[in-house]
Amino acid sequence: MNTDFVLDPRLLADSHAVATLELCDLRLHGDSSFPWLILIPRIVGARDLIDLDPSQQGRLYEEIDRCSRVLVQAFSPHKLNVAALGNVVEQLHVHVIARFRDDPAWPAPVWGRVSVAYAADAREARIAQLQELLGR
Amino acid sequence: MNTDFVLDPRLLADSHAVATLELCDLRLHGDSSFPWLILIPRIVGARDLIDLDPSQQGRLYEEIDRCSRVLVQAFSPHKLNVAALGNVVEQLHVHVIARFRDDPAWPAPVWGRVSVAYAADAREARIAQLQELLGR
Repeated sequence: MNTDFVLDPRLLADSHAVATLELCDLRLHGDSSFPWLILIPRIVGARDLIDLDPSQQGRLYEEIDRCSRVLVQAFSPHKLNVAALGNVVEQLHVHVIARFRDDPAWPAPVWGRVSVAYAADAREARIAQLQELLGR
Repeated sequence: MNTDFVLDPRLLADSHAVATLELCDLRLHGDSSFPWLILIPRIVGARDLIDLDPSQQGRLYEEIDRCSRVLVQAFSPHKLNVAALGNVVEQLHVHVIARFRDDPAWPAPVWGRVSVAYAADAREARIAQLQELLGR
């Protein structure tokens, strides 16, 4: 148990809880422009992937794989974007984003844009869909 | 042996060979603004991380970890950026980039900028440094 782990307040503000995986908190980014997941390993002080020990890395990559497949199943994207950047929010987090040739940023990366919030019912429906696919 | 594997011509044009790892071709991006490595798994037709089988994924992540540690050893960056995007070049490739608070893109991601080419001697020196660290 990482009882001292606290989610970065900016990640908390920008995203919505989807699931508690074995290693990571899984959250939906609040920008409705993209089906956009964020995985945050509950490891105190981790900033970079290399800060995880090999078993934690293995678990993270399994969870990235699982979440990637959920996005493919739910949204049939043209491409996945998977990235650990952390230049602004240093707490280690991994973006897994479904990209489409007609999405508003294509083919550029998604970061640095104005976020378009979900309507509450659309957000709840999307979270429920993701939770159902994760539970299968 | 993946004898049918051919490196995407845009990756070939934008980067320089550093090493042939077990799974990946390791290349130095030609933009001298950042110490920027690209790993390209020699798997024909792979576009996304989920296109690799579990053993290939495991090997890729080991090679990302190794290259990340080489960048830390060589450049002591403030942060690493690790990303598989592929919106423009679809052939699966992973960026591993050393970032600094005084680099020309900070804190934004590095993509979409005008590339500043290395002088030939600086490029060769950087590649030799990376090769030496990889060989240890």
